[in-house]
Amino acid sequence: AMSTYVESIKVTSKDDSRPFMAVFPDLVRELTVEGAEKDIPLVPKHLMKCIQYTVPTGKRNRGLALATSYQILKPNDKDQELAYILGWCVEFLQAFFLVADDIMDGSETRRGKTTWYKHENVGLAAFNDSILLETCLYTILENHFKDKPYYHDLVQEFRTVTRYTAMGQSLDLLTSLEKTPEGKKNLDAFDMSRYSSIVRMKTSYYSFYLPVVLAMKMARIDNPELCRQAKTILLEMGHFFQVQDDYLDVFGDPKVTGKVGTDIVDGKCSWLIVVALQRANPAQRQALKECYGVDDDSSVEKVKAIYNDLKLPKIYKTFEESSFEDIQTHINQLPGGGQMLPPLVFEVFLKKLYKRHV
Amino acid sequence: AMSTYVESIKVTSKDDSRPFMAVFPDLVRELTVEGAEKDIPLVPKHLMKCIQYTVPTGKRNRGLALATSYQILKPNDKDQELAYILGWCVEFLQAFFLVADDIMDGSETRRGKTTWYKHENVGLAAFNDSILLETCLYTILENHFKDKPYYHDLVQEFRTVTRYTAMGQSLDLLTSLEKTPEGKKNLDAFDMSRYSSIVRMKTSYYSFYLPVVLAMKMARIDNPELCRQAKTILLEMGHFFQVQDDYLDVFGDPKVTGKVGTDIVDGKCSWLIVVALQRANPAQRQALKECYGVDDDSSVEKVKAIYNDLKLPKIYKTFEESSFEDIQTHINQLPGGGQMLPPLVFEVFLKKLYKRHV
Ligand SMILES: [Mg+2]
Ligand SMILES: [Mg+2]
Ligand SMILES: [Mg+2]
Ligand SMILES: [Mg+2]
Ligand SMILES: [Mg+2]
Ligand SMILES: [Mg+2]
Repeated sequence: AMSTYVESIKVTSKDDSRPFMAVFPDLVRELTVEGAEKDIPLVPKHLMKCIQYTVPTGKRNRGLALATSYQILKPNDKDQELAYILGWCVEFLQAFFLVADDIMDGSETRRGKTTWYKHENVGLAAFNDSILLETCLYTILENHFKDKPYYHDLVQEFRTVTRYTAMGQSLDLLTSLEKTPEGKKNLDAFDMSRYSSIVRMKTSYYSFYLPVVLAMKMARIDNPELCRQAKTILLEMGHFFQVQDDYLDVFGDPKVTGKVGTDIVDGKCSWLIVVALQRANPAQRQALKECYGVDDDSSVEKVKAIYNDLKLPKIYKTFEESSFEDIQTHINQLPGGGQMLPPLVFEVFLKKLYKRHV
Repeated sequence: AMSTYVESIKVTSKDDSRPFMAVFPDLVRELTVEGAEKDIPLVPKHLMKCIQYTVPTGKRNRGLALATSYQILKPNDKDQELAYILGWCVEFLQAFFLVADDIMDGSETRRGKTTWYKHENVGLAAFNDSILLETCLYTILENHFKDKPYYHDLVQEFRTVTRYTAMGQSLDLLTSLEKTPEGKKNLDAFDMSRYSSIVRMKTSYYSFYLPVVLAMKMARIDNPELCRQAKTILLEMGHFFQVQDDYLDVFGDPKVTGKVGTDIVDGKCSWLIVVALQRANPAQRQALKECYGVDDDSSVEKVKAIYNDLKLPKIYKTFEESSFEDIQTHINQLPGGGQMLPPLVFEVFLKKLYKRHV
């Protein structure tokens, strides 16, 4: 059943990209030079620059996922344009997180160009820009959804997901700061339960749960049991996505992914290191402790050699297949047998994820 | 009329401090170790530390002002405890701004102790803590006000004021970054209109307007014309307060204020420099351009000498008196002749401000 659905949606998804982009310039204007605060000196123009630099310059997957989900839930509905606008709200949320994250991580580049805070000597004042980006999404919501019966639900979802994401970021930061009694990086903190918590909180909620739940709110689908199960599936997909991302960081082809992985050097709590630590013998564990997170080529090579000795690529392939099947099963078990919520909403996402190489 | 009112309120205000503090520990618990996210590792305890360090450690003027305003609007009401809780939401908002501001300004101390981001090597991760502090206030609102008819109004006020404050912060940062063609600090950007915008956006909305408007929402006072005029008065009071603050930074007695001013060295857009630039002759203007924002004692002394030559203390005293009278007049002109909204709400504030030395 999935393949027929998917062929049709590929078209839908491509079709969405152009009208999605088309609503953006008006949003920028209403937030800046034509907004309620347009007469404040300097700020509207600065904010416009910041928005143009940080919001529309990514892959826009989350905003498009929302628009496509709504298209599936309510085909050719008069509010499809509102779904594009709501999609941009998700993109503003992401820009808020990423501008802040890049400062906290000291990152030089993002999406192939200089990070915002390194750009034009904005410096730490970029923190305030990230706060402004957050406020923008609520201004857009107010301007376009205030009279909708589901307006407060949208605000509530953004609030909750923002809190989860900030908590996930905090958990990630605190985990990477954990030290052994000797003051060295503590790999013992990297277990599968910690990994799953970080991924769920920091990534899955805003990247997978949020776009779909917002489309469901717009479409007035609010059966609580259905929503609960949809959430479970979307968080599972987020986990699936992040494991892939971690795998590709080390085993992906840089010619295909377009980037050279840095998770080993950065000492990230990645799926690979967590599985490796589960399976390592005492000597391998010791070697991982000595080499993981160390910025020299021979340390990185030692870690990779242990990953290969432990057959992580094979373990990954098995995980990918069984996880894909589990998610498919959960989609098929949704209440209403596909009548209350078309499975295509999830399958579009899943199709994009399964066996991806980028 | 004012003096009789004020004597009674001094008692009220003191009485509020203890029950206001009393609700705080339960709020901390519901946000952390007993909150919905209590099972996430590390984060609840970290957040608890952050809250304890940053939220209840100031003067709590804004939270108390809200509680006192509500006490005046609805004396001995069953919801007075809710007013304390809402007061803490304003204090969380302030903590969110201050933690971020200290990072952006590179400040070492705040309220007589090390700033949060310098504390325990939290570093730039403190920016995420400031985001968490912001989310806390909405969690408190949801936990305690969700079923109130005015719940969405409260959320809306916090969001609007957050946007204004971030814009004020941005305007302040952008103003201080303005450079002359030679790349020097540009004092020409410091005019009275710019000064007023910064103060209104960055300080008055969240410090003066927000506490009173929230108390009014709780008391179900929502005549639009009354609200509009109340807002005007509160923003006037914020301006009055900031001018005082700027005056005391240079001319206050450090033994009374407890701090040595740094506005001249920091090159701040202060009321004093704006008035000085308005009144300076060409030679004085040139000297100000050379000495303002320069970190050495003789430059600071030269600026102070010019301030004295231009009789700024006398100009300030005149401003203080006429501004106080204007505000009094506006209070007396509120619609309803004090029946719709007791003037005491404003007079309590004003009394605290007038002829203060700290
Ligand atoms: Mg990063
Ligand atoms: Mg990061
Ligand atoms: Mg990655
Ligand atoms: Mg500061
Ligand atoms: Mg500052
Ligand atoms: Mg000051």
